[in-house]
Amino acid sequence: MWESNVRKVVPYVPGEQPKISKLIKLNTNENPYPPSPRVSERLSNLNVSDFRKYPAPDCEILREALAKKYNLETDNVFVGVGSDDVLAVAFLTYFNSKKPILFPDVTYSFYDVWADTFNIPYETIPLNEDFSINPGDYFKENGGVVIANPNAPTGLYLGIDGIEAVLAANPDSVVIVDEAYIDFGGESALKFIDKYENLLVVQTFSKSRSMAGMRIGFAMGCKKIIKYLSDVKFSINSYTMNMPSLELGVLAVEDDEYFVSCCKKVISTREWTKGELARLGFTFPDSMTNFIFVKYNGDKSRDHIAAELRKRGIIVRCFNSDRTKEYMRISIGTDDEMKTLISALEEILYA
Amino acid sequence: MWESNVRKVVPYVPGEQPKISKLIKLNTNENPYPPSPRVSERLSNLNVSDFRKYPAPDCEILREALAKKYNLETDNVFVGVGSDDVLAVAFLTYFNSKKPILFPDVTYSFYDVWADTFNIPYETIPLNEDFSINPGDYFKENGGVVIANPNAPTGLYLGIDGIEAVLAANPDSVVIVDEAYIDFGGESALKFIDKYENLLVVQTFSKSRSMAGMRIGFAMGCKKIIKYLSDVKFSINSYTMNMPSLELGVLAVEDDEYFVSCCKKVISTREWTKGELARLGFTFPDSMTNFIFVKYNGDKSRDHIAAELRKRGIIVRCFNSDRTKEYMRISIGTDDEMKTLISALEEILYA
Repeated sequence: MWESNVRKVVPYVPGEQPKISKLIKLNTNENPYPPSPRVSERLSNLNVSDFRKYPAPDCEILREALAKKYNLETDNVFVGVGSDDVLAVAFLTYFNSKKPILFPDVTYSFYDVWADTFNIPYETIPLNEDFSINPGDYFKENGGVVIANPNAPTGLYLGIDGIEAVLAANPDSVVIVDEAYIDFGGESALKFIDKYENLLVVQTFSKSRSMAGMRIGFAMGCKKIIKYLSDVKFSINSYTMNMPSLELGVLAVEDDEYFVSCCKKVISTREWTKGELARLGFTFPDSMTNFIFVKYNGDKSRDHIAAELRKRGIIVRCFNSDRTKEYMRISIGTDDEMKTLISALEEILYA
Repeated sequence: MWESNVRKVVPYVPGEQPKISKLIKLNTNENPYPPSPRVSERLSNLNVSDFRKYPAPDCEILREALAKKYNLETDNVFVGVGSDDVLAVAFLTYFNSKKPILFPDVTYSFYDVWADTFNIPYETIPLNEDFSINPGDYFKENGGVVIANPNAPTGLYLGIDGIEAVLAANPDSVVIVDEAYIDFGGESALKFIDKYENLLVVQTFSKSRSMAGMRIGFAMGCKKIIKYLSDVKFSINSYTMNMPSLELGVLAVEDDEYFVSCCKKVISTREWTKGELARLGFTFPDSMTNFIFVKYNGDKSRDHIAAELRKRGIIVRCFNSDRTKEYMRISIGTDDEMKTLISALEEILYA
């Protein structure tokens, strides 16, 4: 039977992408604002005739733009089809030890899926009771470390000293710091790439740069660690980034002013939303991301609240592990969307 | 040392993508014609605001369009970031036996790279002296079979009976038929997907559909074999296809008339080029693709001819294995480009 040689996996289940318009979609941490107007301009100037040609396999224009933005050289930067692609190739590249890789028990739910898919042994480290990460838990022998900072779905940020402690304690392992949400207030570990060559910092265009639909992620590290990643990528797919991603990605990076202003708006809306949610009786770890991970402490269950929100056209994300089953993850939308959310919650909780 | 756990690979080296304009680029089998005008129209109507949202992870609109074109159901179709992505995921999905997978000694040079990258044992089967494939060579025990049909870089097409013989002899293995070049004259193995559930047919938008720059490949097979592939894909990257690929891909498939007319033009130019190359003293397997794999039988070496062509702004592709080192692979360009090529060759060979 041909099926006996088939790799059987339990796939990651992404957040719903309903095809209904007019929804208030607060379930996949998308940015409520469109990409930079310069992306739109460039799009209308794309030369469709060029689609017949292969894109540059080295993705140089986009890596150059990112290098310039982060004061690096092009060879310190790797790009892929969303940070999921970058992280998957990174797992395959760096985690070939028989010792388990380490990551928190409550974190991005793709890490264990990649480990399973690529037969990488792993051990999950329980977060503290308050969902914070204890860096000391990552000082033991391991085949690699993955820390999302800020962490998802908790939203909590680990100070940069904590990241440095993990890096310093693990010269024999690659430490991946997944910074998908770093632009919403945290400080990046990027400043350590010269000091720790075992560090890979991964970021994405899907959240702070409003480009989830373009699938662009990137990694930064010392040239040596990037070269290994790049070699494996070229051994899987030489031409990963299509022409529009490369061309439009450059403009999204170059328009720094627009980027910064969008992040500020999201942060300001988040802070307002925190106040309102606290007022309504929700508790949550203090988010440094574009979402809030909330628990209601009154007499309505999480599933009831989520279902009632949905009836009102508002979608949030629910996870179902032992430690997360009472929580909802609510993405930060526009001010208007969050006001609608708060009114809906008032109705659901107190009507 | 962190490097001891790093996967070290010898990456595939893609054909050059020089950044010089005015070149006659006959080295990567790109289509000389632009994509359908409907692609261009759709591009100008894309809504940039939608870039902020994740694309549909199931890629349904594109799979539906392909299903309609090939009289299949959506669940018979899988799409990926170029056929390289589709093939890489397919290797990872189907080839988990301890027995070697089989493919020809002269074929697409990525097959052994994927096998090495994913630790899949493999055995290469020598093509016949004339570069043809002998189906009987694939009747022995194996962990899977991969046949490019037409084969690259030879250009030779194996009749569909030969493919069926391989399928029938291998009920315990997945047989991948890589049909990157099938639209230039061959008959697809697609008609066997109901009869042989171990068949996966892989095609691409990069050649016949003039969309190399958009990175779209696809696979077709029975629903069960596609489901396995899809599960592994969702375990690596849930959102592989960006919004422009999905939206523009649909238009490229729907404009069948344009597609057929481009293929006809390429075929007609190829046949003219064959006559001219034969007249100049080249021999070649009879190509059913958009390239010709030629050997010069006079007193000039291949490397000399390729270097002289390059001086004249014409780039072709040279391979360097024992069996290919006297050959050049020449992609089919426009009529004008091929006339320029022939004049250049006359000058190089007889001046």
